[in-house]
Amino acid sequence: MMDEVDENCPLLRHGRQGATPPSPPPTSEVLNAAVHQLNAVIEGFGARDDPGHGDDNSDGEFEASESALNHQHTHRPIHHVCRTNYGINNDVEDGNLRNRFQPAAEDVVPSSPKITIESLPDMNQLSNAYESLDYDDCENDLFLEEERRKGYRHILKVQLARWVIVFMIGVITALIACSIDICIDQLSAIKFRIIKYHYDRCMLIGCMSVPFFIWVSWDALFVGFSSILVAYGEPVAAGSGIPQIKCFLNGVKIAHVVRIKTLLFKVIGVAFSVVGGLTIGKEGPMIHSGAVVAAGISQGRSTSMRLDFKATEQPSSLRYLINFFLSQIFEYFRTDQEKRDFVAAGAAAGVSAAFGAPVGGVLFSLEEGASFWNQGQTWRTFFASMVSTFTLNIVLSYYHGVPWQLNYNGLLNFGKFDEISYSGFEIPVYAVMGVIGGLLGAFFNHLNYRISVFRRRYIFRRWSQVMESMLVATITTVVAFVMTYMVVDCQALGKDPIEHPLQVFCHDGQYSSMASLWFQAPEASVRSLFHDPYGTYRPLTVAVFGFAYFFLACWTYGLSVPSGLFIPSLLTGAAWGRLVGIVIKIMFPTAQWVDVGKLALIGAAAQLGGIVRMTLSLAVILIEATGNISFGLPIMIALMVAKWIGDFFNEGLYDIHIKLMRVPLLPWEPPPMTHNIRAKEVMSHPAATIKIIERVGTVIDLLQTCNHDGFPVIEEDLPVAQREGEIPGQGLLRGVIARSQIIVLLVNKVFIGRGQTAPHVNMATFRDTYPRYPAISDVHVSVRERELFLDMSSFMNPAPYAVFDNTSMPRIFKLFRGLGLRHLVVVDKFNQVIGVITRKDLARYRFESHKGNVRLMEIPITS
Amino acid sequence: MMDEVDENCPLLRHGRQGATPPSPPPTSEVLNAAVHQLNAVIEGFGARDDPGHGDDNSDGEFEASESALNHQHTHRPIHHVCRTNYGINNDVEDGNLRNRFQPAAEDVVPSSPKITIESLPDMNQLSNAYESLDYDDCENDLFLEEERRKGYRHILKVQLARWVIVFMIGVITALIACSIDICIDQLSAIKFRIIKYHYDRCMLIGCMSVPFFIWVSWDALFVGFSSILVAYGEPVAAGSGIPQIKCFLNGVKIAHVVRIKTLLFKVIGVAFSVVGGLTIGKEGPMIHSGAVVAAGISQGRSTSMRLDFKATEQPSSLRYLINFFLSQIFEYFRTDQEKRDFVAAGAAAGVSAAFGAPVGGVLFSLEEGASFWNQGQTWRTFFASMVSTFTLNIVLSYYHGVPWQLNYNGLLNFGKFDEISYSGFEIPVYAVMGVIGGLLGAFFNHLNYRISVFRRRYIFRRWSQVMESMLVATITTVVAFVMTYMVVDCQALGKDPIEHPLQVFCHDGQYSSMASLWFQAPEASVRSLFHDPYGTYRPLTVAVFGFAYFFLACWTYGLSVPSGLFIPSLLTGAAWGRLVGIVIKIMFPTAQWVDVGKLALIGAAAQLGGIVRMTLSLAVILIEATGNISFGLPIMIALMVAKWIGDFFNEGLYDIHIKLMRVPLLPWEPPPMTHNIRAKEVMSHPAATIKIIERVGTVIDLLQTCNHDGFPVIEEDLPVAQREGEIPGQGLLRGVIARSQIIVLLVNKVFIGRGQTAPHVNMATFRDTYPRYPAISDVHVSVRERELFLDMSSFMNPAPYAVFDNTSMPRIFKLFRGLGLRHLVVVDKFNQVIGVITRKDLARYRFESHKGNVRLMEIPITS
Repeated sequence: MMDEVDENCPLLRHGRQGATPPSPPPTSEVLNAAVHQLNAVIEGFGARDDPGHGDDNSDGEFEASESALNHQHTHRPIHHVCRTNYGINNDVEDGNLRNRFQPAAEDVVPSSPKITIESLPDMNQLSNAYESLDYDDCENDLFLEEERRKGYRHILKVQLARWVIVFMIGVITALIACSIDICIDQLSAIKFRIIKYHYDRCMLIGCMSVPFFIWVSWDALFVGFSSILVAYGEPVAAGSGIPQIKCFLNGVKIAHVVRIKTLLFKVIGVAFSVVGGLTIGKEGPMIHSGAVVAAGISQGRSTSMRLDFKATEQPSSLRYLINFFLSQIFEYFRTDQEKRDFVAAGAAAGVSAAFGAPVGGVLFSLEEGASFWNQGQTWRTFFASMVSTFTLNIVLSYYHGVPWQLNYNGLLNFGKFDEISYSGFEIPVYAVMGVIGGLLGAFFNHLNYRISVFRRRYIFRRWSQVMESMLVATITTVVAFVMTYMVVDCQALGKDPIEHPLQVFCHDGQYSSMASLWFQAPEASVRSLFHDPYGTYRPLTVAVFGFAYFFLACWTYGLSVPSGLFIPSLLTGAAWGRLVGIVIKIMFPTAQWVDVGKLALIGAAAQLGGIVRMTLSLAVILIEATGNISFGLPIMIALMVAKWIGDFFNEGLYDIHIKLMRVPLLPWEPPPMTHNIRAKEVMSHPAATIKIIERVGTVIDLLQTCNHDGFPVIEEDLPVAQREGEIPGQGLLRGVIARSQIIVLLVNKVFIGRGQTAPHVNMATFRDTYPRYPAISDVHVSVRERELFLDMSSFMNPAPYAVFDNTSMPRIFKLFRGLGLRHLVVVDKFNQVIGVITRKDLARYRFESHKGNVRLMEIPITS
Repeated sequence: MMDEVDENCPLLRHGRQGATPPSPPPTSEVLNAAVHQLNAVIEGFGARDDPGHGDDNSDGEFEASESALNHQHTHRPIHHVCRTNYGINNDVEDGNLRNRFQPAAEDVVPSSPKITIESLPDMNQLSNAYESLDYDDCENDLFLEEERRKGYRHILKVQLARWVIVFMIGVITALIACSIDICIDQLSAIKFRIIKYHYDRCMLIGCMSVPFFIWVSWDALFVGFSSILVAYGEPVAAGSGIPQIKCFLNGVKIAHVVRIKTLLFKVIGVAFSVVGGLTIGKEGPMIHSGAVVAAGISQGRSTSMRLDFKATEQPSSLRYLINFFLSQIFEYFRTDQEKRDFVAAGAAAGVSAAFGAPVGGVLFSLEEGASFWNQGQTWRTFFASMVSTFTLNIVLSYYHGVPWQLNYNGLLNFGKFDEISYSGFEIPVYAVMGVIGGLLGAFFNHLNYRISVFRRRYIFRRWSQVMESMLVATITTVVAFVMTYMVVDCQALGKDPIEHPLQVFCHDGQYSSMASLWFQAPEASVRSLFHDPYGTYRPLTVAVFGFAYFFLACWTYGLSVPSGLFIPSLLTGAAWGRLVGIVIKIMFPTAQWVDVGKLALIGAAAQLGGIVRMTLSLAVILIEATGNISFGLPIMIALMVAKWIGDFFNEGLYDIHIKLMRVPLLPWEPPPMTHNIRAKEVMSHPAATIKIIERVGTVIDLLQTCNHDGFPVIEEDLPVAQREGEIPGQGLLRGVIARSQIIVLLVNKVFIGRGQTAPHVNMATFRDTYPRYPAISDVHVSVRERELFLDMSSFMNPAPYAVFDNTSMPRIFKLFRGLGLRHLVVVDKFNQVIGVITRKDLARYRFESHKGNVRLMEIPITS
């Protein structure tokens, strides 16, 4: 999406998104100069890199202070080099400006909060390659004209269209979920039938290498195919997609994340990976799929598929009629804001289809994405979720031969916990299990973080990614095979309705319960651990199984295949939870309350909570998936304790991966203790501005040399006395215009001057280019036209949000987060533009809490 | 709360909150003049009052247009008298200002959106008596100093304190719920035992007047007592309290709504009303109680009870130690924002206790109150809900003699629907029932609206309110008695575990099922209708019962007693839902799927949804209360259809009552089609401003004559050429200071001048007066001190949110709603103050949709 970026921007330096080389990235000379300058300053100030002193005002640390910033008439901006925006800022080129505000050494009064600079591990960087979504309406004249023309009836029509689209999102998401499920079901059946045939045959005649090789090669091939799809086809389809959707809902555009191609490869890939026996689930990818479906349907077009349902100008064909009809539904939602709302609904529908948890789905999309709560939007999201569950139910009821018996709530069915009950004294047990889950989850996340860093450094070539996936698949199969061989745990057949019982070394009429755990879909194994009666598994079986699954799952997540994290987490947790139950049962054989299935459920919840650290939504998903409300409190206690314990050590796995992607995500709340960081320190300045009426040539030159997405529009006619020591204003703020708007104006040659009148453009002209407008390099303008003028006044946003230069960080943060801004203009007290703040400028200030130490970091932005 | 308001404000005219006389209120001469002027203008323009033309651009209507507002340098403000802020604005007194911008007649170009003025029914007014809550931090020097002094450890401590408080909220709310429940249980048992004794005795010897009079007088006395408590004690304790809590969460302070006294009277009142046999529930008041508990606990003090847990200066006593310890928890939450968050948690805990629906509780407080979603806050709210359910469970398990069997999920227990299932073809049936529910709900709301208007006009004296309550109680009892007498529906005893079976005219071994419906708590009747087997009730019984209950409930809601709306709605709905089931069963005796209990549940959901129009939260509450997730889709369909149908006619009952209270509530979204309404038309101007350094006397005079809550602080040193036709600026905006802050400064005599140095004040000084600061009339300043100066620079908010004069309505709305503002300064393009926008200025623009017609109204603000 950054194709139009030119590298020679004199103001701001963004990079191309590429293979994301490990840090430090190859930087321009300018950047190197900045880093050198920085290092010198750090040495000069004697900066320490010690995170252990988060709360005392120890001297010598590298800190900022503005004790008397707001005194009347004594306003003096203080700039610290520690807050230099690496790469994004223009301090170095504009050295004299920066130096003018350089404080004398004695100005730097030690005080909290501290800002320390990390030793730059992979997580503490932000990438410049991501664009932001813009949720702010540009209320220019065209917008007003369109609103006036359409009238109120239009509003009702749009409302209705929203419901229609949301209904379609629910149905199609569910159909995709069904396809995946049925596909996996059929393929797995074939796989297990073949292997079981050879297994049973060879146990007698001693050719165990045959089923072994069939099994290994089946798995390696399937996983390899899936990995090829992802690595060579669409890398963003890897993983669960939840981190990517979270970023999208937060307001960061990740390239290709909601494209049809991504959906296709994700769906096929996850089916093949699951059939290939990896320790993954299909639930996370379902959430991503729902989001893609929503983005696609709501827009009514696919650039990849060259479809566009909008009213065309040639009323000649059937196609016109179809288009006309569909354009009544689709055309109005081509803005970031509408798209985001639909994507939230799609993600909820995905959760709903995956877990049969419509309420959990709504809460998931709220928890992961919403900045604000809107009743109508929430209700539509819930509708999408319900439609999704309902459709899935109907289709699966047919598939399973019981039409219209709507009992298949989701892909993942934990089975009913009807008879579950608990007493108050069991609560401490659940809390302890929460502690275990939190510790194991934190360990899992740390391990996976290490693996991911290793992977980013050494396994970034496509073929190596495919090889790694196949290696993991092979090892998983080998582990399964070996365990089945080594751990003999024979159970009488018929105790448990198992689909593919393997006899292995057991007597006739028995089956190996260890083999059965490996030899079925992971969802079925979760169900077995929850519901199989006490005695089905020996302690050693579940212990060894859980141990192996933990490490395999940890290695697997992050491979270049579509893979969900929920099922492996739940399975690991269920294993150790059941183990806890078995151990208690052995120690206190008379304890009536011990139900191994119940403890397995708590273990699963604690483990999952310890890894993903979701809160309410996860609790509700688990409650809905188990179909039991009265057991909600134990689940919540386990989840909460697990989250608390886990958060003591590190973050949730999704957040870790988001940070590894170097996405400038805005957290829920502004970093604490940042009220004394002011807009003038956060902003980039001077801003790249445009005059209300500007020469075409000047505009083109600006766009070619600068990749900003929004430009303050200024008026330069005010003679204000500049006070000593203040940042010079760049002209009165009159509006803001987006890069895409300017390019549309250039492409349509909306020029004035020399008797020329500008051709008419309307909102549809701008909407048509959404979301992929041409690059500035594709705009061709003649030499004569370069001398004409562009009049921004009808196209710019005439009342942009702006803040004063002494506005505090939390206020700016709330504006960005609460209103979904993409850029915010900073003005001085005379309303003169002095800078621009973008999402990245804010995301650079990151608050971290680690093992009881808290600190504020300022992290660098890399290309 | 408005004690400090002086009537002689030259700028803005607010009124005292009093007995709220019916419209039109007695107005000042100024207001009359405005209305006259307005009428003249309306006649002159030929305005019609026809709401039926909401969507065409018909000429002659009274409209506003600003087609070319934003053209460069041609900015011309257009003011229409139709947008006059009755009473709040200063047009008339400042006539020459307004007239200067009066457009010539030809300037008024007809265009949409239309703004029509209503004939002022009771709903279309806003009261000036409500204060707003302020969620914006005032980041002045003291604030920064405190932040710096406390450091990071303080943040962790505050976090911990939040969890402790939330835990306490959950426990105490549940304990209150238990007390109410047990109290009602015991009193009802006594009542029914006495009446049953006389009933059974008199059936034999024919003295039926004895039980009749006992019953009637018991009910009238109990209800009368409850009504006296409310009418003479605390009028705000009347009703369910949900509208009031909704207002509080929305940001409007309703006097006394979260006081301890209100809680006390509400709790006692609801117990007595329920025992008095009114057609009400105890669930709504539980939600209000939870909110009061939360507000009280979080503040750590009660002004009414003269308790204040904060660190005092005399370290001499045990009391000091206790105070010191508790102040570590409580002192930091004395801001509107923190209080709001805790109140949301308290309301959720209340829902959780009432319905055993912790997730529903969280969603309730989000749906009713949240402007934005915050993960941490939501998780804490959920914790409060869970703790509340858990505590209630434990206490009730002891009360019912099965300690630690945690099966009593909430006060309202629908009983388990274990065996419920449905097929896809039943969906249309549920949709039709949704239509019925929507129609009945809309009818209920309309009727109740009429009754409420009547009540406001004619029954506003206290004794008449008490009389009405007793009358309703009497009639309810008479209706119950007569029905029991007239409708004979005998059922064999033992079919149904009924607590107080009445034989009436039935044979021995039988009981009257009609009598049993009336002769038990309404909750128990709901349960009976849901779970009693087919055949327990004859069609006539449920029909007559439902009919009577509908009208009684409609009359009862709004009486001067604490009363919940959920139970009567559910009971009415369950009655007609069961009737539908019985009728279908009679028509198609072989239909296996017809389960009268299931249809009663759907009817109950549809009826409740048709009345309150809640969405997701109601669905989840019902799902949780029935303990059955798989039946969620039918419930949701019924709710959704009921809401759609009902919304076609009118609003939810809570919203109707909020409008009758004339509260300036901000809806979820800005009114549509208002992008061409600009800040300069919405604002009040000129603003009451204060200079950064201002003479004490001037400040006092200003406060005495003007009841604004926030004052822009200006600097007057900029010579800017005023352009022709523009609104004159009032000086450069440098900050905003709140009325309460100025009063604290005056009380503490923080004056400068004549060699005097201001005494030291800190944040605690300001926090101590929260939320009830002294009135300006209580501030006494000597003549000498009047000549000293106040320096606002360290105390004002130095970077307030401000917008330009051409900012559109939706943008302003989003700022208010998204950031929880109380006032917003409007500046011109030179950053000179030209006006102030408050919540009321926004709430005046109301969008209404009624029977397919939509329109934008501008409603007047009355005192």
